[in-house]
Amino acid sequence: MQGAIATWRMAHDGVVEALRLLEKNERAGDAVEALIKTVEDYPYYKSVGYGGLPNAQGILEMDAAFMDGDSFKIGAVAGITDVKNPISVARSLSEEKFNSFLVGTGATQYSMLHDFERKNMLTPRAHKIWEKRLKEIQEKQLDPYDGHDTVGAITLDTYGSMAAGTSSSGLFMKKPGRVGDSPLSGSGFYVDSTIGGAAATGLGEDLMKGCLSYEIVRLMGSGASPQEACDQAVYSFETKLKERYGKAGAFSLIAMNKAGEWGVATNVEFTFSVGTQTQAPQIFLANPGKNKTTLIEPITQEWLEAYEKRIKAPID
Amino acid sequence: MQGAIATWRMAHDGVVEALRLLEKNERAGDAVEALIKTVEDYPYYKSVGYGGLPNAQGILEMDAAFMDGDSFKIGAVAGITDVKNPISVARSLSEEKFNSFLVGTGATQYSMLHDFERKNMLTPRAHKIWEKRLKEIQEKQLDPYDGHDTVGAITLDTYGSMAAGTSSSGLFMKKPGRVGDSPLSGSGFYVDSTIGGAAATGLGEDLMKGCLSYEIVRLMGSGASPQEACDQAVYSFETKLKERYGKAGAFSLIAMNKAGEWGVATNVEFTFSVGTQTQAPQIFLANPGKNKTTLIEPITQEWLEAYEKRIKAPID
Repeated sequence: MQGAIATWRMAHDGVVEALRLLEKNERAGDAVEALIKTVEDYPYYKSVGYGGLPNAQGILEMDAAFMDGDSFKIGAVAGITDVKNPISVARSLSEEKFNSFLVGTGATQYSMLHDFERKNMLTPRAHKIWEKRLKEIQEKQLDPYDGHDTVGAITLDTYGSMAAGTSSSGLFMKKPGRVGDSPLSGSGFYVDSTIGGAAATGLGEDLMKGCLSYEIVRLMGSGASPQEACDQAVYSFETKLKERYGKAGAFSLIAMNKAGEWGVATNVEFTFSVGTQTQAPQIFLANPGKNKTTLIEPITQEWLEAYEKRIKAPID
Repeated sequence: MQGAIATWRMAHDGVVEALRLLEKNERAGDAVEALIKTVEDYPYYKSVGYGGLPNAQGILEMDAAFMDGDSFKIGAVAGITDVKNPISVARSLSEEKFNSFLVGTGATQYSMLHDFERKNMLTPRAHKIWEKRLKEIQEKQLDPYDGHDTVGAITLDTYGSMAAGTSSSGLFMKKPGRVGDSPLSGSGFYVDSTIGGAAATGLGEDLMKGCLSYEIVRLMGSGASPQEACDQAVYSFETKLKERYGKAGAFSLIAMNKAGEWGVATNVEFTFSVGTQTQAPQIFLANPGKNKTTLIEPITQEWLEAYEKRIKAPID
């Protein structure tokens, strides 16, 4: 049984590509890297890779991580700049016994020394959005922070191996050097091929308070289905966070187990894409339901058209 | 009941100071910050703060984190330079809703803008050790990486609040920008005042594969004593890592619950300091025992004298 699941509508083409590879018996690690590269390369997604929105200084700093569910190898980068595919740098780092998580100029330097393709990742469109927002913040005293649509993905190959990957340009208008949950094991992602994997998107500052990706994998390891594990981990943590911290940012989690069964839970409207050997890749819309459950329905054509229009709308 | 526990013999003076504050009904957060500052300020500890050993380029890059067990507020820095007390920067960041984990020059810039005391953290002694090692590596083709004696600490105050803190200069001779487990929630530390807290020291690259601090707190929340939780999490993960990754780096975990009971587990010789309302602060030596248990004994005067001599030995 092969399968792939990833956060947000933007990941759909990547999920299709991952499933194409997995069908040809390619490996989970290659599939998850290909999936995430597809998202990184697309210029109209504002929170991942090329076209991502920059930090408060106008610099696009990116975070990414890769985890191999067979060996637990992890590679991660945070605050990396000017590199086409942060996920590939993260994956390369996962082969290092030491120095497998690099940040800032050290991460960028590693990508140079290892000949990863360099690219000016700030598109003219993203530059324009940044200038516009800067002006709005000054004029209207707006809270500058929104947009944290990380791509997180889990893949399962026909050999029973699993992998996880994440990639993000983080919060729009973040302070230089800000890191969210995406490169953090247990918070942004976790995978164990003998159980399953999980990945997160949302406010990283809150996600790291709960280690939800680890917790979901652990619950699946104790016998929960992916959907039960997501519901239990996400909604109980949201309640706890509101009680203890006073508020809870937006967060959404996806999971797939070693049988290719999947689940999601979210405290906001959330889209994702999933496909398996027996289920053609499809985009779904998820919303929090009653009594710690999640409402999941196929995306409508209207929603897709409005989305397409929105992401390509002219910036005035 | 108040209490404090921290990794390594080097933390003992800090534990004494934390208990002095906690006895006067000061808060867990203040006590853990004071504890860690004591270690950061002492010039003969080679892996934390002032006197810490630098990266491959001779630059001392430091990591630290703070977590409040009441609110789950987390602040963290990685790859920060030239600041006297990274733990205080991390604690200050824990008050931010956004941008609470900063790395590299962004972290250093934050510490400047918030008037944290700047200091040349590379001591002449550390500089000399670095030059010597550089020569040895070139001459003898040595594996350059050792020394990851992070200070990690948990405190419990008389109001029942708990806090966790970590501080580290990371692996000696690490690549620029390398981050270990110390600033990573769930791996380097985790604390929930309604349960207890845990913190780690060891090879960060391996610790982040297991999220052991989160797992120990979770086990305590399910009814395990701190010692049972440490033994179960640490030794089962070590076995799993050897099976799946082929090897396991050194790691040692400490824990304290909300009743002031404590535990440790380790796969190497490990020292720690602990004290509570009913137990005077004391340094212990821990070693892995039989059947997934930990052997704990008070440190001997001979050990302490040899340690003192070793850390202050002339560098030839």
